[in-house]
Amino acid sequence: MNSLSTTTRKSMMLFSGRGYLELAQEVAKELDVEITPQSLYDFANGEIFVRPEQSVRGTDAFVIQSCGAGINTWVMETLIMIDALKRASAKRITVVLPFYPYARQDKKHRGREPISARLVADLLKTAGAHRLMTVDLHTDQVQGFFDGPVDHLFAQPLLTDYISRSYGGEPLTVVSPDAGRVRTAERWSNRLGGTPIAFIHKTRDPSRPNQVVANRVVGDVADRTCIVVDDMIDTGGTIAKAVRQVLEAGARKVIVAATHGVLSDPAAERLSTCGAVEVVLTNTLAIPPAHRFEQLSVLSIAPLLAKAIYEVFEDGSVTSLFDV
Amino acid sequence: MNSLSTTTRKSMMLFSGRGYLELAQEVAKELDVEITPQSLYDFANGEIFVRPEQSVRGTDAFVIQSCGAGINTWVMETLIMIDALKRASAKRITVVLPFYPYARQDKKHRGREPISARLVADLLKTAGAHRLMTVDLHTDQVQGFFDGPVDHLFAQPLLTDYISRSYGGEPLTVVSPDAGRVRTAERWSNRLGGTPIAFIHKTRDPSRPNQVVANRVVGDVADRTCIVVDDMIDTGGTIAKAVRQVLEAGARKVIVAATHGVLSDPAAERLSTCGAVEVVLTNTLAIPPAHRFEQLSVLSIAPLLAKAIYEVFEDGSVTSLFDV
Amino acid sequence: MNSLSTTTRKSMMLFSGRGYLELAQEVAKELDVEITPQSLYDFANGEIFVRPEQSVRGTDAFVIQSCGAGINTWVMETLIMIDALKRASAKRITVVLPFYPYARQDKKHRGREPISARLVADLLKTAGAHRLMTVDLHTDQVQGFFDGPVDHLFAQPLLTDYISRSYGGEPLTVVSPDAGRVRTAERWSNRLGGTPIAFIHKTRDPSRPNQVVANRVVGDVADRTCIVVDDMIDTGGTIAKAVRQVLEAGARKVIVAATHGVLSDPAAERLSTCGAVEVVLTNTLAIPPAHRFEQLSVLSIAPLLAKAIYEVFEDGSVTSLFDV
Amino acid sequence: MNSLSTTTRKSMMLFSGRGYLELAQEVAKELDVEITPQSLYDFANGEIFVRPEQSVRGTDAFVIQSCGAGINTWVMETLIMIDALKRASAKRITVVLPFYPYARQDKKHRGREPISARLVADLLKTAGAHRLMTVDLHTDQVQGFFDGPVDHLFAQPLLTDYISRSYGGEPLTVVSPDAGRVRTAERWSNRLGGTPIAFIHKTRDPSRPNQVVANRVVGDVADRTCIVVDDMIDTGGTIAKAVRQVLEAGARKVIVAATHGVLSDPAAERLSTCGAVEVVLTNTLAIPPAHRFEQLSVLSIAPLLAKAIYEVFEDGSVTSLFDV
Amino acid sequence: MNSLSTTTRKSMMLFSGRGYLELAQEVAKELDVEITPQSLYDFANGEIFVRPEQSVRGTDAFVIQSCGAGINTWVMETLIMIDALKRASAKRITVVLPFYPYARQDKKHRGREPISARLVADLLKTAGAHRLMTVDLHTDQVQGFFDGPVDHLFAQPLLTDYISRSYGGEPLTVVSPDAGRVRTAERWSNRLGGTPIAFIHKTRDPSRPNQVVANRVVGDVADRTCIVVDDMIDTGGTIAKAVRQVLEAGARKVIVAATHGVLSDPAAERLSTCGAVEVVLTNTLAIPPAHRFEQLSVLSIAPLLAKAIYEVFEDGSVTSLFDV
Amino acid sequence: MNSLSTTTRKSMMLFSGRGYLELAQEVAKELDVEITPQSLYDFANGEIFVRPEQSVRGTDAFVIQSCGAGINTWVMETLIMIDALKRASAKRITVVLPFYPYARQDKKHRGREPISARLVADLLKTAGAHRLMTVDLHTDQVQGFFDGPVDHLFAQPLLTDYISRSYGGEPLTVVSPDAGRVRTAERWSNRLGGTPIAFIHKTRDPSRPNQVVANRVVGDVADRTCIVVDDMIDTGGTIAKAVRQVLEAGARKVIVAATHGVLSDPAAERLSTCGAVEVVLTNTLAIPPAHRFEQLSVLSIAPLLAKAIYEVFEDGSVTSLFDV
Repeated sequence: MNSLSTTTRKSMMLFSGRGYLELAQEVAKELDVEITPQSLYDFANGEIFVRPEQSVRGTDAFVIQSCGAGINTWVMETLIMIDALKRASAKRITVVLPFYPYARQDKKHRGREPISARLVADLLKTAGAHRLMTVDLHTDQVQGFFDGPVDHLFAQPLLTDYISRSYGGEPLTVVSPDAGRVRTAERWSNRLGGTPIAFIHKTRDPSRPNQVVANRVVGDVADRTCIVVDDMIDTGGTIAKAVRQVLEAGARKVIVAATHGVLSDPAAERLSTCGAVEVVLTNTLAIPPAHRFEQLSVLSIAPLLAKAIYEVFEDGSVTSLFDV
Repeated sequence: MNSLSTTTRKSMMLFSGRGYLELAQEVAKELDVEITPQSLYDFANGEIFVRPEQSVRGTDAFVIQSCGAGINTWVMETLIMIDALKRASAKRITVVLPFYPYARQDKKHRGREPISARLVADLLKTAGAHRLMTVDLHTDQVQGFFDGPVDHLFAQPLLTDYISRSYGGEPLTVVSPDAGRVRTAERWSNRLGGTPIAFIHKTRDPSRPNQVVANRVVGDVADRTCIVVDDMIDTGGTIAKAVRQVLEAGARKVIVAATHGVLSDPAAERLSTCGAVEVVLTNTLAIPPAHRFEQLSVLSIAPLLAKAIYEVFEDGSVTSLFDV
Repeated sequence: MNSLSTTTRKSMMLFSGRGYLELAQEVAKELDVEITPQSLYDFANGEIFVRPEQSVRGTDAFVIQSCGAGINTWVMETLIMIDALKRASAKRITVVLPFYPYARQDKKHRGREPISARLVADLLKTAGAHRLMTVDLHTDQVQGFFDGPVDHLFAQPLLTDYISRSYGGEPLTVVSPDAGRVRTAERWSNRLGGTPIAFIHKTRDPSRPNQVVANRVVGDVADRTCIVVDDMIDTGGTIAKAVRQVLEAGARKVIVAATHGVLSDPAAERLSTCGAVEVVLTNTLAIPPAHRFEQLSVLSIAPLLAKAIYEVFEDGSVTSLFDV
Repeated sequence: MNSLSTTTRKSMMLFSGRGYLELAQEVAKELDVEITPQSLYDFANGEIFVRPEQSVRGTDAFVIQSCGAGINTWVMETLIMIDALKRASAKRITVVLPFYPYARQDKKHRGREPISARLVADLLKTAGAHRLMTVDLHTDQVQGFFDGPVDHLFAQPLLTDYISRSYGGEPLTVVSPDAGRVRTAERWSNRLGGTPIAFIHKTRDPSRPNQVVANRVVGDVADRTCIVVDDMIDTGGTIAKAVRQVLEAGARKVIVAATHGVLSDPAAERLSTCGAVEVVLTNTLAIPPAHRFEQLSVLSIAPLLAKAIYEVFEDGSVTSLFDV
Repeated sequence: MNSLSTTTRKSMMLFSGRGYLELAQEVAKELDVEITPQSLYDFANGEIFVRPEQSVRGTDAFVIQSCGAGINTWVMETLIMIDALKRASAKRITVVLPFYPYARQDKKHRGREPISARLVADLLKTAGAHRLMTVDLHTDQVQGFFDGPVDHLFAQPLLTDYISRSYGGEPLTVVSPDAGRVRTAERWSNRLGGTPIAFIHKTRDPSRPNQVVANRVVGDVADRTCIVVDDMIDTGGTIAKAVRQVLEAGARKVIVAATHGVLSDPAAERLSTCGAVEVVLTNTLAIPPAHRFEQLSVLSIAPLLAKAIYEVFEDGSVTSLFDV
Repeated sequence: MNSLSTTTRKSMMLFSGRGYLELAQEVAKELDVEITPQSLYDFANGEIFVRPEQSVRGTDAFVIQSCGAGINTWVMETLIMIDALKRASAKRITVVLPFYPYARQDKKHRGREPISARLVADLLKTAGAHRLMTVDLHTDQVQGFFDGPVDHLFAQPLLTDYISRSYGGEPLTVVSPDAGRVRTAERWSNRLGGTPIAFIHKTRDPSRPNQVVANRVVGDVADRTCIVVDDMIDTGGTIAKAVRQVLEAGARKVIVAATHGVLSDPAAERLSTCGAVEVVLTNTLAIPPAHRFEQLSVLSIAPLLAKAIYEVFEDGSVTSLFDV
């Protein structure tokens, strides 16, 4: 006999970094599998060590990592986990980054800047990632930074459905907090049935030469329930200012909605005191108790991640998850 | 004696594809060099042949190509020119694409789409391009698609200076023709000293259920001189509609300004009849006589390209060309 | 449970560019599958858009493209189709190019020429092609240009069988139209049972100093049925001249046979008037009605492509298709 | 029907270079498969030709090569075999090099040296190897030279078990022949239950200025049964000197043990006359009759290779082969 | 005129990460240049931003980074600095890492471990580093992990010269704290004129079955001045234990010497109380006041780095810096 | 001061493998430089060691190697020399292989063959070669196998000039020894002023069914001075048979001419007894005394190599060396 021959089987294993273990566990529960146990710890000088405690040979590995505070550590941890899986003969490695790190540094705003979002994509590829799954990139173009398939999931339906259920009967206006995200606001408007949109225009006021920048609300917000939307909230400065501006311009009520709750200090304080009646986020990033506040609602992204992972494993269709 | 030793010299040579030879010649004149002669023609079945007629060994080569009508042919021609230069031992190859082809396909709008703008970047790299120079990318993120230095030039100062000279005393409003380019309008506004901005919001009109999409002007345009701005004008449909919308909304006068005049049919007809008093473009792309019309003004991009090429050759600073 | 596990299945899908849809459909019919539907069209400025209309995740994709007239467009279309399939998570992508574009530019004939055939191979690889299938390369060495498996199919058996059936009883001589393809003629001769061969020698005639180049027939053609063979016929100039030369040298009858009918103008006219009694081609390239002529016979390559695709999909043997 | 679909099967095929065919056959027998027959010979000028005589399309190929005398030829042969398998569409190629060639050139001992062990890893990758399997690398770091999974097998258990069975009751000391491999000796000691260790320290003797280097035994060897261990024995000079040194220092008996028997001349003579009672090696390299001697014992590495190959094919665990 | 031509000049610029700015400044002072100023700060969520404040086009850039505490942040910062320099058209980028991060994870100690030292090398390459300069790698083989030139500097002469000056007249023994670094001890011994060497052997003590591991000193240390040497000191546990062991074995006096003072807690406490009369380190890593202690002496590595950088810039010889 | 700045100089250094040192020395003498001394020897098991004995930092290195008998060793030696130069920071590495090894394995003659000529090109690239220089490739397409500039030199002018001087007054016919190299014969004919050409046709003789293959001379050779030309002579079987065939067909005199004298046994015997009056070769390969014979003339290729190396170093034109 010249060759051994056998039917091929495939198996899926989930791995989680330490960035936000609870989210990975929630995904695992949805899929009815368990996170594969790993030795995963820091050496005294901060160098990260990782070793899966079971054979991963031939597996379809999904590495889930949420890159919140301590973001550089989580990026390095992800790269090292990928390296370990590659060298341990995992068949395919899909990195699941619900929040894509450095997504905002996606171009040279001025000469001599890095394009860190491309760098991160290249680092993941170099470490050994075959595929990437992520949620609501800061700009869609970041998909093109990775040299391989990217499953780009959208949290917008989750958020708009929630808004519709909660405020659907009111006269809604979708507000972009700056000129760069008006298109996002338009997508929200479409999903909410064609509401008006508005945005905050940051401008030099030619009539008052001493005051360099002023904000104007462009669009109708008076007497309306305004949804200020963004992809992420970091320190909350722009958003909180936008909420105040919209209220000053006569809005009846303001809700804030975003996918990624980065919530760096002093976001919690700013958001809780800016006048918004509700701030809706998803849990692509861990939101520790200290960063939570009364008006905050958090929707879980885990069911969406689990469905997408399942489709990838089963060669199904991720696109179909977002068909209307 | 163990080794020959000599002082190093460097030389710059310009090469032009057939996409828009006049522009390359204008650049060459600014630099006081000549386009290096090449055999460059099609075989009977359309296969392109190219051969520089002089030694290019060790040179710092700049390949200028404008990708207008017949765009796929010009892309292939560029790749083949690069291959010839690489194999003929050019030291460094900078591709100068005043209009970046396929820039609009910069992301997957829906699942299963290509990201052709990334593909083009990879093809250029594969052929042997070390660097890329281009003007006003459709989205800035395309810079990150190329694995190497990109000199991204801005035509906006050229256009805004022209507008200032021509219409500076009038009450200006900058208008984005859709929600996706409001940020561009804001940049224009800043450069023009802080004018108001407006945009056209495409929306489902909830009050008229049978008419699926309506356009609304968001922002103040009544009694103002409106500058409708975009990065490129292809068939002119969106732009012409925007001009009409703005006039209907009470604008006193409308000017259209854009960097790239793609001007596919029926752009010339649409633009000449839409009511705009002037349409200002640059010559990043050739505009053949048949596509010209009375209201059209074309500003030359050649001096900017020449300055940038000179800085690249001399290890100067391209960034400094755009410092205020 | 730590992992999901399941048996692996594989599926084959066919995709066709617009170069010659009928050939792809013929292949599909042989395989009893359907071409997967795609949105595939040009934007106004010629940029190509493609999107498969069904999920292709995990599939074994075969992209069929015939690169006839408009060749650069078809090359770019192929690259964009591959990019879309790669990003849509096709498992394996085999490009089927019955006629390999730029195959004749396979070396630097003189310094500073490109090697476009290598460039095309690299472009296909960069876009994401894993494998290549093609028919009768201009030179066999082009196989080595692609960094991956190449299934190089031979149309010669199809052609020689046809010639044997039609002219087997006559005194055959195989004629190469120039010195570079005498080896091809020899392979034909072997397949036809050991016929004599001849070729046309282009030479400076030393006896007539004013006439720089003359053609001489080297080998016996007088009173014989001559088969003038080549891999492709482009404008038909060399072939038609060879036919005339052979007839002048006393041939009884001349037949022309080649794999690829590029047939650029004025090939149809030249071939129909050169004196050949029959011109036999395969349909690796579309031959539009305007390029057909009375003496033309076209053999279908589709069954061979279908058999080879099936072997590739089923991990069978393509080599065995050509065993005697 | 849009696609053909079928269950995936996988098959394993073994290929052997000419370096040490008997070892490959022994492995094949353990696995109950046959070595796939190949045409494999040298042309008159020494260029190697290889061609598998059966279809290898889609197979999981294991290429076994022992790089003994004529080492550069075997390296080239391995690379060419990989190239043939890659181009013939083998699905996965694992190179099995029981003795990793050039493993000793794993760093720049002085400036301007090559790092040939890294070079070999890169050559294998370039040729098309996906994975590497090897035994007892000279330094473990060589694993990191290959850009892909490496299955690093350990012959130490085989050797220590043999030593335990043969000399377990005697007072053992493990001796490293130089300062660089004391850690290896320590691993032996652990495996043998905690024996003392010693090593030979090469030093300038400060008391005798004219004699530049002297060797001192560091550690207790007097009246003990000493096992001098190393990863490989090349000309045997260091080892034979170490045996003598240890005997002079009062050892009762000396055994030599190593994984790789390179045994370049005059190793056989040196080892047989150095005073060692037994020299234990494995057959990672062929040991021709002329290099054998009375005290030599050779243990077969084939069962270990066969088990590891089976685990790789079946997506089992190679790590588990070495769990205690 | 066809081309511009000019003499080529080259310039060197130094860049420093935030890991240990003082060291970079010391290097700059030695070279009589200044660190090029950069915007270099963290965003609120920890993402790093960097932008050189001057044109770097065409420069020979040296990026100095010391990866001490917060090591993952410094690695990421280095990668982002490289990306910015690459995209800003620096001609050549040399990364100077006096302490190579993750050097200890240079092999798979057990199955399924990462090889993070190789990963780091690949990440640096991917970001755009052309060359690497580092000091006293944990194992020399790490040089081979980087795909490009590595200038590996040795701090040993600095340290041995210091020891010779301070303790040259005493009866020295060089001690390796474990079996893995005896070769290092031997190199020290050679440099110190041929002193005896010893090491600590970690072993299972067969006579006391309940006590799993015991340490034995192998070699002569009684009544001698012992230099315990290592490449780095992290938490100091092994070293401190070795010092005690050597003192218990009768050493007259113990000095500790190592290149890299990682000094993670509780290293300072351990080293200051272990009985060593002096602990000699270099400043490849910053040693903050809280980690300093009475017996600590720190030698500056800056002159060596400066000399090596100068040789690299001037195409001189780094190897010659270490010739005796 | 922010940066050090200085004028750039470049230097050329020559390195020679052990394949044919005399040729390299002859080239060096033409260039008036010396071969850079290297430690270059084999270890006992055949592993090659190389180390340049001088700093090569920043140099323009030319590595000359003639791959005659022991060809695999010379290929490996070349790769290791390149690796050493790369890691020692040579600026540019040009490999000069007067005879390209494995050039004949430039395609898959049948399924499952390697394409070793492409493999060799990839190995050179992987080791670190930037450029390749070679003479008279077996097929020109091999140029396209190397991913970088190839300077392909032609020995034909050297050979034809010699033939013209020696036999110019006689009635010459150029003869190809088989059907595959008729194009080469045609190029010779052109260079010699338009002589007739002929070739040997290997065929099944249909009239004698028991004798499978017969050779026929196609073309006029009777009463003529025939030059049998080829790119290389290995064992001389084909060539010697061709000489006899041509003599039997009535040739007055036969001369053999080829670029590469591989001359594997029994070439010398065959050539000296086949009836040719002269055999003209170049010294791209060493021809040891035992392989020389009375009729042999050897022309030196060194002046051509030296000129080409000089042009490459000085950024001159290699193409111009072959302009008429």
